Amino acid sequence: MAPVEKAKGALPGEFTLIEEIFAPLASDAPEAFALKDDAALYRASEGYETVLTVDAIVAGVHFLPDDPPESVARKLLRVNLSDIAAKGATPKGYLLVTAWTDDTCFDWIKRFAAGLAEDQERYGISLWGGDTVRTSGPLTLSLTAIGELPQGTMLLRGGAHPGDDIYVSGTLGDAALGLEVLRTRLGELSREDAVHLVRRYREPEPRCSLGPRLRGVASASLDVSDGVVADLGHLCGQSGTGARIEMDRLPLSDAARRAVEGQPELLQLIVGGGDDYEILFAAPPERARQVAAAAAEASVSVTRIGEVRESGEGVRLVDRAGQPIPLKQLGYRHF
Amino acid sequence: MAPVEKAKGALPGEFTLIEEIFAPLASDAPEAFALKDDAALYRASEGYETVLTVDAIVAGVHFLPDDPPESVARKLLRVNLSDIAAKGATPKGYLLVTAWTDDTCFDWIKRFAAGLAEDQERYGISLWGGDTVRTSGPLTLSLTAIGELPQGTMLLRGGAHPGDDIYVSGTLGDAALGLEVLRTRLGELSREDAVHLVRRYREPEPRCSLGPRLRGVASASLDVSDGVVADLGHLCGQSGTGARIEMDRLPLSDAARRAVEGQPELLQLIVGGGDDYEILFAAPPERARQVAAAAAEASVSVTRIGEVRESGEGVRLVDRAGQPIPLKQLGYRHF
Repeated sequence: MAPVEKAKGALPGEFTLIEEIFAPLASDAPEAFALKDDAALYRASEGYETVLTVDAIVAGVHFLPDDPPESVARKLLRVNLSDIAAKGATPKGYLLVTAWTDDTCFDWIKRFAAGLAEDQERYGISLWGGDTVRTSGPLTLSLTAIGELPQGTMLLRGGAHPGDDIYVSGTLGDAALGLEVLRTRLGELSREDAVHLVRRYREPEPRCSLGPRLRGVASASLDVSDGVVADLGHLCGQSGTGARIEMDRLPLSDAARRAVEGQPELLQLIVGGGDDYEILFAAPPERARQVAAAAAEASVSVTRIGEVRESGEGVRLVDRAGQPIPLKQLGYRHF
Repeated sequence: MAPVEKAKGALPGEFTLIEEIFAPLASDAPEAFALKDDAALYRASEGYETVLTVDAIVAGVHFLPDDPPESVARKLLRVNLSDIAAKGATPKGYLLVTAWTDDTCFDWIKRFAAGLAEDQERYGISLWGGDTVRTSGPLTLSLTAIGELPQGTMLLRGGAHPGDDIYVSGTLGDAALGLEVLRTRLGELSREDAVHLVRRYREPEPRCSLGPRLRGVASASLDVSDGVVADLGHLCGQSGTGARIEMDRLPLSDAARRAVEGQPELLQLIVGGGDDYEILFAAPPERARQVAAAAAEASVSVTRIGEVRESGEGVRLVDRAGQPIPLKQLGYRHF
C-alpha cells in the first residue's frame, strides 16, 4: 500500500527490512515462500485442524519502552503461543505486523529479530508472513499464531463440570510482581529474586509442552492473562459453573513468596495481577493420575488449587478454613 | 494482558466492546466461539489448503483521519481480501486487531463495525477473533484474512513464462488520483469524477469473483498495491522473466482518462501510484479464451496490457511505437 506521506527516520526501506531481517526467519518454512509472495500457504496435517489467535502489544501499554528488544520479541510471540498451548494445540507458524516509529533504530530491529529467531528454534515454528508499516505513535507489534491439533480435540473454556478439580501450571503472580519491581514499588528484595520476577514479567513461558498433553484429559482450559480469579471466572462463565479455589494452594515461586511475606497486600497481585501465562484447567478427579503424568512428561509443575462447583456458588477464593476471602479486601480491582 | 497504565478516554471496556460491537460480527461462525474463547478453530474443506495474509493500516499513513469509519473498515478488509483473491483463494474469515486512541469515540467504532458487517455479507466471511488494545498514537488497525483453495492450485508470483500474455483487471490509477483529489492537488474535475476517484481510493474492490476463476488459467498472479510497474517487477522477479507492457493499453476509467487529459503528468500515478487492488496476472496465449470466460463469469473487465519476455529485456513500459517510456520521465519514484 502506498503511504500517504513518506516515512521519516533512518530505517532501511520495507523491502530491505524484509530481505535482510525477516526473510531469514522464514527460510525454513515452505509456507512462507521466502516472504516473496502475497500470502502464506498452509496445509494442516491429515486429520488435524487449525487454531488461530492474535495478540498485539504496544510500547508503554503492554511492555516498557526500555525493555530489551529480545524480551519484547519473546513476549509478543509467547503471549500468543500461550493461547495456542492452552487450547491443546502445537504451534506451527506465525504472521508478524510491525509498526515502527521514527525513533526505532535498525539495531533495535536486529535484536528484536534475534529474539524471534531464538524462540523459533525453541518452539519449532517459523515466520510465515506479515506486514511492516510506520507509525507516528508508540511502537506497536501484532502477531497471529497458527497451531494445529487432531480434529475435535481443542480444549475450550466451556466443558468443566461441578466436581472437576481445578489446576494451574507453574507459579502465579511473578509477572505482576516483576512489573512492580520495574516500577520500583516493591520493598526489600534480593537481587536474585528481583531478576527472577522481572524475567517472568518480560518473558512469559508458554506451556507448549503441557498443553497438547492435556487433550482428552482437561475438561476446560485457558491461559491466565487477566489474573487467576478473573480467568477462572471466564472458564466458569463458559462452563456454566461456579468454582472454589484456595488461597493457600496457589503456587508461588520462592521469590514471590518472599515478596509477599514482606508485603501481604501484594497477594492482590497473585490473584489479580495477570500476565501469568500459565494454563488454568479443570479435569475430573478420576483423571488426576493422567494430569500428573502429563505434568511429569512436560516437565512443568501442575498444582491442584480447588474444584469446580455448581454455578450458584459463584467463583470464590477461600482461606484454609474454607471461608471466602473478599476480593475487595485484597484490593482486587478488576470486578 | 494487563495494561501497564489504565486507558484514558470514554470508551467502554474491552469486554463490553467485544460483546456489543464485535461478537455480533462473529455470530454466524462456529470458528469464532462467539469470541468467548482464546482462539479460533478452523478446519479447511477436504482437499483444500489455507491461504493466510495480514495487512495493517495506520491513520495518517494508509488512510486519512477524517475518512468515514465505514470506508476505513472496508479498506482494511478489502486490501487483505485482494491478496486472497489474487492468489486464487476464496475468503472464509478474519482476525481483527484494533488499537484505539484516546480520541476514538464509541460512535466511530459502531460505524466501523457497520462497515465490516456490510462487507462480511458481501464477501461471505465472518469475524473469527482478534484483539483490542489502546494506543497513545494514531488509530492502528490490522487484519489477518484466511482463505482456502484446492490443494496445489495457489497462484504464485513466480510461474510466468516468456510469451505469456499479461492482463490486469478493472482500471488502474483511480485510487492514486482519488488521493490527489482529497489533497486538492487535482485540477478541474466534475463532481461525479471526483466522487468516483475518491471512492476508488477509500474503498478498493477486491476481485474475489475473478481470482478463484484464474486457478489453472493464470501462470502467475498478484494484486497491484505498489503500482502496476512495480508489481509487474515483483511478478517478473519471482518468475525469472522480463515483461513489456504498453502504456496505451493500460485500462483507465472515464474519470481517470479525463483527469489525465488535463494533466498528462498524472500518468505517473497510473503506472506507479499504487493502491489499485486489481489483479495483475500472466497466462499463456492459448488460454486467452479461458481468461475471457473467467472475466465474463466474474463480471470483471480484464485487459491484456502486454507480454512476458526474457529476463534480459527487463520490465519495460512502451509507447504505441514500441519505444520504451523512461519511467523517470513520468516522475516515477519507486525505483
